[in-house]
Amino acid sequence: MSAPRSAIEIVTIGDELLLGFTVDTNAAHLARELGDDGFRIARRTTCGDDAAQIADAVRDAFERTGAVITTGGLGPTSDDNTKSSIAAIFGRRMRLDENIWARLQQMWKARGWPGEIPESNKLQAMIPEGAKILENRHGSAPGIWLEDEHSRWVAMLPGVPRAIRGMRADTLRPRLRAWRGSAAVTVVRSRTVRTTGVSESALHDKMAEMRRRVHGLPLAFLPGWEGTDLRVTSRGLGDAEADATLERAVADIRARVGDAVYAEGADDMADTVLQAMRARGWRAAVAESCTGGMLGMRLTAIPGSSDAFVGGVIAYSNDVKVRDLGVNASDIDAHGAVSETVVLQMASGVRGRTGAEVGLAITGVAGPGGGTEEKPVGTVWMAIDTPLGARAVMSRLIGDRDEIRRRATQGVLNLLRKALSA
Amino acid sequence: MSAPRSAIEIVTIGDELLLGFTVDTNAAHLARELGDDGFRIARRTTCGDDAAQIADAVRDAFERTGAVITTGGLGPTSDDNTKSSIAAIFGRRMRLDENIWARLQQMWKARGWPGEIPESNKLQAMIPEGAKILENRHGSAPGIWLEDEHSRWVAMLPGVPRAIRGMRADTLRPRLRAWRGSAAVTVVRSRTVRTTGVSESALHDKMAEMRRRVHGLPLAFLPGWEGTDLRVTSRGLGDAEADATLERAVADIRARVGDAVYAEGADDMADTVLQAMRARGWRAAVAESCTGGMLGMRLTAIPGSSDAFVGGVIAYSNDVKVRDLGVNASDIDAHGAVSETVVLQMASGVRGRTGAEVGLAITGVAGPGGGTEEKPVGTVWMAIDTPLGARAVMSRLIGDRDEIRRRATQGVLNLLRKALSA
Repeated sequence: MSAPRSAIEIVTIGDELLLGFTVDTNAAHLARELGDDGFRIARRTTCGDDAAQIADAVRDAFERTGAVITTGGLGPTSDDNTKSSIAAIFGRRMRLDENIWARLQQMWKARGWPGEIPESNKLQAMIPEGAKILENRHGSAPGIWLEDEHSRWVAMLPGVPRAIRGMRADTLRPRLRAWRGSAAVTVVRSRTVRTTGVSESALHDKMAEMRRRVHGLPLAFLPGWEGTDLRVTSRGLGDAEADATLERAVADIRARVGDAVYAEGADDMADTVLQAMRARGWRAAVAESCTGGMLGMRLTAIPGSSDAFVGGVIAYSNDVKVRDLGVNASDIDAHGAVSETVVLQMASGVRGRTGAEVGLAITGVAGPGGGTEEKPVGTVWMAIDTPLGARAVMSRLIGDRDEIRRRATQGVLNLLRKALSA
Repeated sequence: MSAPRSAIEIVTIGDELLLGFTVDTNAAHLARELGDDGFRIARRTTCGDDAAQIADAVRDAFERTGAVITTGGLGPTSDDNTKSSIAAIFGRRMRLDENIWARLQQMWKARGWPGEIPESNKLQAMIPEGAKILENRHGSAPGIWLEDEHSRWVAMLPGVPRAIRGMRADTLRPRLRAWRGSAAVTVVRSRTVRTTGVSESALHDKMAEMRRRVHGLPLAFLPGWEGTDLRVTSRGLGDAEADATLERAVADIRARVGDAVYAEGADDMADTVLQAMRARGWRAAVAESCTGGMLGMRLTAIPGSSDAFVGGVIAYSNDVKVRDLGVNASDIDAHGAVSETVVLQMASGVRGRTGAEVGLAITGVAGPGGGTEEKPVGTVWMAIDTPLGARAVMSRLIGDRDEIRRRATQGVLNLLRKALSA
């Protein structure tokens, strides 16, 4: 093996995945963690449960790369094609593993199922000759490691996300490190700068000649409902040089993009805002109409948010806006529930009734119905009321109902972030 | 071409996907919609942006199946390796497409970017000789259709989800139908029965000897935070027979699983509950502690929910529980905020203050911190208060903070569903 042992292929198995009924989060998670360990993902493949499909897909990957991780096809409801199909690639027979069989019998009793476990379940306890068991402390089906005389291998993991995540860390990782040995590792590092409230094209403009590469590092624009993330990636540089170059690149991006940067890495806007609130010893309350609680949900998704968030009012109906937030019914009649005056009254109203230092409010037309010529779907008023003053902005947000609501929560949080950083 | 023209491979291109920074929702969406049109997905592959990787992955798929859809690598920030790599497979040169180039120049001006569009952008207007343009009304980069003399083809789509969804429907679908011609279509139909509040193993038990197949149709157990979905799939049956067999299978599943079935297909529990509320002319209000608004968000995610949902109170802090919901502070001191008496007071309190016929309440320990021996992380009290009476239940929910909160919203909605169907 002259090639450095670091390239791995991932084959995810299952009709559910192939047919798109299930989104393949396992492959993404595995790829990310293997990349963090310095392994290179050569290719990813998804095939169905059919034995021939599994054999073809895994054989192709095995002959290309000689290092393959599969997920799925080991669980109690699978037809168990994964193990036998891959055993055939290695020319191995299947044998009954008494330990697994005993464990299955125990589980059957533990679950209080009637009678004895059916013989048919013995299929689950069959493993290829010469296979090593990859212990699974996170689920029922163990993983399987099959290796040939050229130390080419296939690692079979179950399809359950929790099991995969756990097994990669505590069972698979040591084996992969041993396999790679002291081979040179291509260090892949990346850093992400998160921006919001600015269009992707405007970002291209700000980055100008650095739009494709920053200090020689490729720059990726990753637009989403939260905004557009800018990711720079270094490949093949030494640790120190990678860190230094990434640092310079991030500094340049921040300098060019400026105030639209709200976080780095995977940090959430809600976290950024909560930290700014804590720094001032303030607590927030929310008044939500079209988002129906999504803003409160985002803030409370952050563990420990209780020291900077008290709660609020979901004012979906106008009655609640009037009775619980003190919005003037006459203003709703005159300007509509989606208006500057109403959103400002919502923000100050929830601040007053909860005693929180900061009130955030959202009211808008999330669609698909309810749009008018004057206020089309996507029209959202957002407001903040703080000891520094009150502010309201209107946005025309794009996307479907869910996306419009998500963008609205991001928008009002960004409004508060800017006010607190001013 | 003796083989029926219905098998297609999907190749999704991009380092972001390969390395797992982005979850590949495009492939799942494409697969699902192609399946609905009666096409068979033979395999799915993900490769990086590197030209050699693209060439290898697409060539493999092209030689296997002769019908390949690619996504990604056409956008303004891509290095444009997709088109040239695939052109090489077909032995085609690249040529400048004046129309695309003109459109790019217009877009540059329309976006108000400075000066003239750089020559470098001409790369985006280069397409393989003999390629057909797949119009993109949903984004900037058009798609490309490349076909050889054996009517084997590769369709290149951009990577933007909205563009892919739109293009598949209005540009790709007619081409695929023309390609398939009158070839026999393998009809794949599936139906899903959604269950909640019952463990997967208990479902196995209820389904007993039908655990793997129902009326000869394979049965898939799909566990998730909402509960466990049971999907039966018919493959290769005629339309009428498929429908009849699926109907019988669903009836059997419903009969065996009983009250735990809350919906079919992709219907959400919130939708089920809102319909039951409408049927009685009732409206709901929520009082949320640990879920922080997630329950209200779920109910308002359903368009038209305003006729059965008024809003509620996010009572994250105990102050809000007492002041806005009328919970007795002494009960919080005596029993804790996560207790039967407090959750019942929350449900009746929000019902009273909003005038809604139904109050739903959640209070629990979502973690990761805050757990005690008596009330470990995952301990959640859920309550409903309706004209039929009040009811509270405690659950020990599993998963991380997000999963526990999701399961809690599902749990209280299921509590209401059962009360309304009683």
